[in-house]
Amino acid sequence: MTPEKHFKLLKTDNQARAGELNTAHGKVPTPVFLPVGSQATVKTLTPAEIKATGFGMVLANTYHLYLRPGIDIIREMGGLHHFMAWAGAILTDSGGYQVFSLSPLCKINDEGVTFRSHIDGSTHHFTPELAVSYQEALGADVMMVLDECTAYGAGEAKVRRAMHRTHEWAERCLRARKRDDLALYAIVQGGFSPELRQASAEYLTSLDFPGYAIGGLSVGEPKAVTLPLLAATAAALPEGKPRYLMGVGAPEDIIAGVARGVDIFDSALPTRVARNGALYTRAGRVNIRRAEYRKLDAPLDPDCDCYTCGNFSTAYLSHLFRADELLALRLATLHNLRFIARLMEEIREAILGGTFAAFRGDFLASYQTTDEVARVAQKGKWLRGREA
Amino acid sequence: MTPEKHFKLLKTDNQARAGELNTAHGKVPTPVFLPVGSQATVKTLTPAEIKATGFGMVLANTYHLYLRPGIDIIREMGGLHHFMAWAGAILTDSGGYQVFSLSPLCKINDEGVTFRSHIDGSTHHFTPELAVSYQEALGADVMMVLDECTAYGAGEAKVRRAMHRTHEWAERCLRARKRDDLALYAIVQGGFSPELRQASAEYLTSLDFPGYAIGGLSVGEPKAVTLPLLAATAAALPEGKPRYLMGVGAPEDIIAGVARGVDIFDSALPTRVARNGALYTRAGRVNIRRAEYRKLDAPLDPDCDCYTCGNFSTAYLSHLFRADELLALRLATLHNLRFIARLMEEIREAILGGTFAAFRGDFLASYQTTDEVARVAQKGKWLRGREA
Repeated sequence: MTPEKHFKLLKTDNQARAGELNTAHGKVPTPVFLPVGSQATVKTLTPAEIKATGFGMVLANTYHLYLRPGIDIIREMGGLHHFMAWAGAILTDSGGYQVFSLSPLCKINDEGVTFRSHIDGSTHHFTPELAVSYQEALGADVMMVLDECTAYGAGEAKVRRAMHRTHEWAERCLRARKRDDLALYAIVQGGFSPELRQASAEYLTSLDFPGYAIGGLSVGEPKAVTLPLLAATAAALPEGKPRYLMGVGAPEDIIAGVARGVDIFDSALPTRVARNGALYTRAGRVNIRRAEYRKLDAPLDPDCDCYTCGNFSTAYLSHLFRADELLALRLATLHNLRFIARLMEEIREAILGGTFAAFRGDFLASYQTTDEVARVAQKGKWLRGREA
Repeated sequence: MTPEKHFKLLKTDNQARAGELNTAHGKVPTPVFLPVGSQATVKTLTPAEIKATGFGMVLANTYHLYLRPGIDIIREMGGLHHFMAWAGAILTDSGGYQVFSLSPLCKINDEGVTFRSHIDGSTHHFTPELAVSYQEALGADVMMVLDECTAYGAGEAKVRRAMHRTHEWAERCLRARKRDDLALYAIVQGGFSPELRQASAEYLTSLDFPGYAIGGLSVGEPKAVTLPLLAATAAALPEGKPRYLMGVGAPEDIIAGVARGVDIFDSALPTRVARNGALYTRAGRVNIRRAEYRKLDAPLDPDCDCYTCGNFSTAYLSHLFRADELLALRLATLHNLRFIARLMEEIREAILGGTFAAFRGDFLASYQTTDEVARVAQKGKWLRGREA
């Protein structure tokens, strides 16, 4: 597939962009959010539910699937789409990030990375070539290069070395490709140095990948550090290629990313917090265990068009969580994912209509971010303390 | 509702019976199996899925719902059907059995039973009158009297005392009724004495309940003890009233119950073993974790018409269980419940066609019961030991 065919930019609204990914498993309107199904399942949901909730593309993880069930089993069954019975598009992460974050022992050199399984401690080896061959066996519509991500606070020498290794590995991944029906994205590194980020974006752009991920952000740094770097990195990438901000999924962060020119997002956050009982509403994230919800005979969000709000009361959802019932996890997951799907639909509509700035302003005016909620609660406590 | 209206016996085939329960929430063909939703949810499933799997009636539990979310919350919301968004029929157990089996401290006297919550240790009191008033608040289509169940091996004096108390409580439950649109079933006790069972059935029959449960069986005794007592108790009950065998749900036990004249069954077994990875097939229960399933690109049971077998391979189901994924629990639950629903449909069809004995013979010829599997495995081990 040529890069031109893989992505079509339809409209820009300042830095925000509306476009379309073209895959063998359907067209995917952008900006898009990918629900995370690391182990070939978006936790608690069937493929039919993922689709009905408004998603045409999901993320799976090479590291997890390599360890369990094993790449060979999925290859022999004709690939990941058939294995997980998902007819939509799939993006696979190469597994590099998981090797670094989940493996108890991990040694990296120019050749590749040796790591221990977080499941049984067995030793394994990934190279750029193997990462591509595994992802081609999975048959992912979008594959990611193997890269080296550095932590916030890493020294410049280390960041520079990791960036150069990421570049070399990106070239090796390109050369290792055997299937041209699958898109391979590069990953920009360069830590928190604007100069290195710029250099990384330029170098990788010269290799003409069909898409680019912005890696190495949201690794513990303050948001005030993230956003200017994100804007600069996105601006350094070619306009005609999709831009993917890895691991970002809070509503306010998606909006901030779109405003800075990002097209693709993924994150386990909406589904993970759902299982903890934190549900999105247009006013912010709320905790289903709040006492007043026990008797509320109305949907959690009367304006929500999700399956949960359409069929069940807040009181029932509250009961399911308090009683540790498995249905609670499903219903909360459906709600949060539908919230995100609808947010993406509305963002795209606004961009196409040239009103993204107004949409963003309206959304953020009513949506209290979690940080703000915590800050306001803290301030309230402090004020009450003064009165006492 | 008059007893005549509540149940219609349509056909008998030796002792086996096909009939129909008539409730305000639909007609329910019998023999019927009720999936267990103690906490107002059949674990992992939505009401739409329960219905699509072939069930028109579920069981909920007064003890569990009384403790959490509390009867008042459900009453204020207009009853259990609305609370759990289930439009089909509901039978509630009175909670007596759970008080005895789950409560850490439980004192019974002629007035009622005082017990501690298994959740928080708080003290509570149930009487026959309260049990009826709670179930009427829930709005169960079929309510159960509060009874006293004795253990296998209890002395005759104790069994006799519990039986008399059960009879007195049944009368008090009858007098406490305020809603005649809901059916109240009595529960036959009498331990393992054929004479006491006969006396209990006769006494309760004289009170003209719309239905009768056979209590106090499957409490740890051998099956050779259960079945003759079950046959005798069922035979002592009026032909025109439905007979409910509480807590029975293994396929071979359902068939044995139908053959002895039982109309209604309930059990958490099919859903509980599903969550442990034990799946029903016509050849018997199989463990999804068997090694050969890891690569099986075919439904677990090619003849099964359930959602799981229609959409997913055994290899995928095996992966979900090995990866501890929540979707595994749903898919296995759907499969096992559909197996039971289809079994009930085929049993009923056979009775209506006068071929139940042949159906029973065919089913049991191919279905290895779990006991047999264990016995055969044991025997195989012994034989291999002799060869070595």
